[in-house]
Amino acid sequence: MEADSEVEALAGDARHAEKMRKKQAAQAKIMANKTREQGLLIVHTGKGKGKTSAALGMVIRAIGHGMKVGVVQFVKGAMSTGEKAVFDAFPDNVEFKPMGEGFTWDTQDRARDIAAARAALDEVRRMIADPAYHMVLADELNIALRYEYLPLDEVLSVLTVRDEMKHVIVTGRNAPEALIEAADLVTEMTMVKHPFRSGVKAQKGIEF
Amino acid sequence: MEADSEVEALAGDARHAEKMRKKQAAQAKIMANKTREQGLLIVHTGKGKGKTSAALGMVIRAIGHGMKVGVVQFVKGAMSTGEKAVFDAFPDNVEFKPMGEGFTWDTQDRARDIAAARAALDEVRRMIADPAYHMVLADELNIALRYEYLPLDEVLSVLTVRDEMKHVIVTGRNAPEALIEAADLVTEMTMVKHPFRSGVKAQKGIEF
Repeated sequence: MEADSEVEALAGDARHAEKMRKKQAAQAKIMANKTREQGLLIVHTGKGKGKTSAALGMVIRAIGHGMKVGVVQFVKGAMSTGEKAVFDAFPDNVEFKPMGEGFTWDTQDRARDIAAARAALDEVRRMIADPAYHMVLADELNIALRYEYLPLDEVLSVLTVRDEMKHVIVTGRNAPEALIEAADLVTEMTMVKHPFRSGVKAQKGIEF
Repeated sequence: MEADSEVEALAGDARHAEKMRKKQAAQAKIMANKTREQGLLIVHTGKGKGKTSAALGMVIRAIGHGMKVGVVQFVKGAMSTGEKAVFDAFPDNVEFKPMGEGFTWDTQDRARDIAAARAALDEVRRMIADPAYHMVLADELNIALRYEYLPLDEVLSVLTVRDEMKHVIVTGRNAPEALIEAADLVTEMTMVKHPFRSGVKAQKGIEF
């Protein structure tokens, strides 16, 4: 390396270190104000992929910490054999309840869909009320709300009246405004690019 | 129920069934064209939460199906003790490599960060080249690209030159345009609401 470019490189490294020191200080200042722990109402919504997967990731983290998690599936097939096999390895940490009767366009029976959604909500209510559970996932609950299979007021009451350290995760596109309002952490998954558009089917390890 | 409202309810049920039949037919038509299976290059980007969690969810699905997954962590702390405990229950299915040297604003040493990113990329390259792996997760690789710790062209070549059935997942905000271009499935996680803003700190089962 020539002397000039070496000097430049060293100056560049110094600038980098200085920039990172400032970032570190800013980050430390932000984190100093974060002192509380509390149970969160988390919502994953939007048309993109990853809503259920990201909830599953949180469930896995909680399981790994020895926490007890309840998983209620409002729509059959959103969670499948893949995660089931992993849950089965931690029988004391996960209770998995696949309650959905299938996608609504498959059943074509509104009364049956409503009964299935009601039974699933009852499971969520039970798990939220039971102090043994640290986290409850209501997977695809937003779909039941979208089709008005369950009264929004009742669902909000089930989700929000709970022990202050209990985490609840709700997934599904079209989260109602009142749920977003009530939630602590809301992420919208936005589809930028999707392989179904180029003829690729649902695959093991990705969709199920 | 009075006769009139009963008739209305039945008509409503019939409209519902008809609407769902149409949705089912439309869905079937869409799915009929999805016949191919192929390894996907998946990118989770955006400022919202859930990028690593959603990747972790896919890893868990793959593990549950008995697939072998390689997980390389470019930034320490993005994956933590929670998921590690679950990975440990499936030693034949997951190889976990935490390669990051910490957030860049903590090291303040560009040369060390570059060396760590380079070592992590070498692990990704090895796992992608090894036919034993069905899925490889390069967690927070986008951060290494953002800081120009690795040449974009080289990274794209590592990610795209691979067995046609191998899935690769890349996470991290600020995914470069060329990576999005090369990817098959891209989801942007958008922050709608975040509890850090109201003083809640990172918590077990949620962030780590």
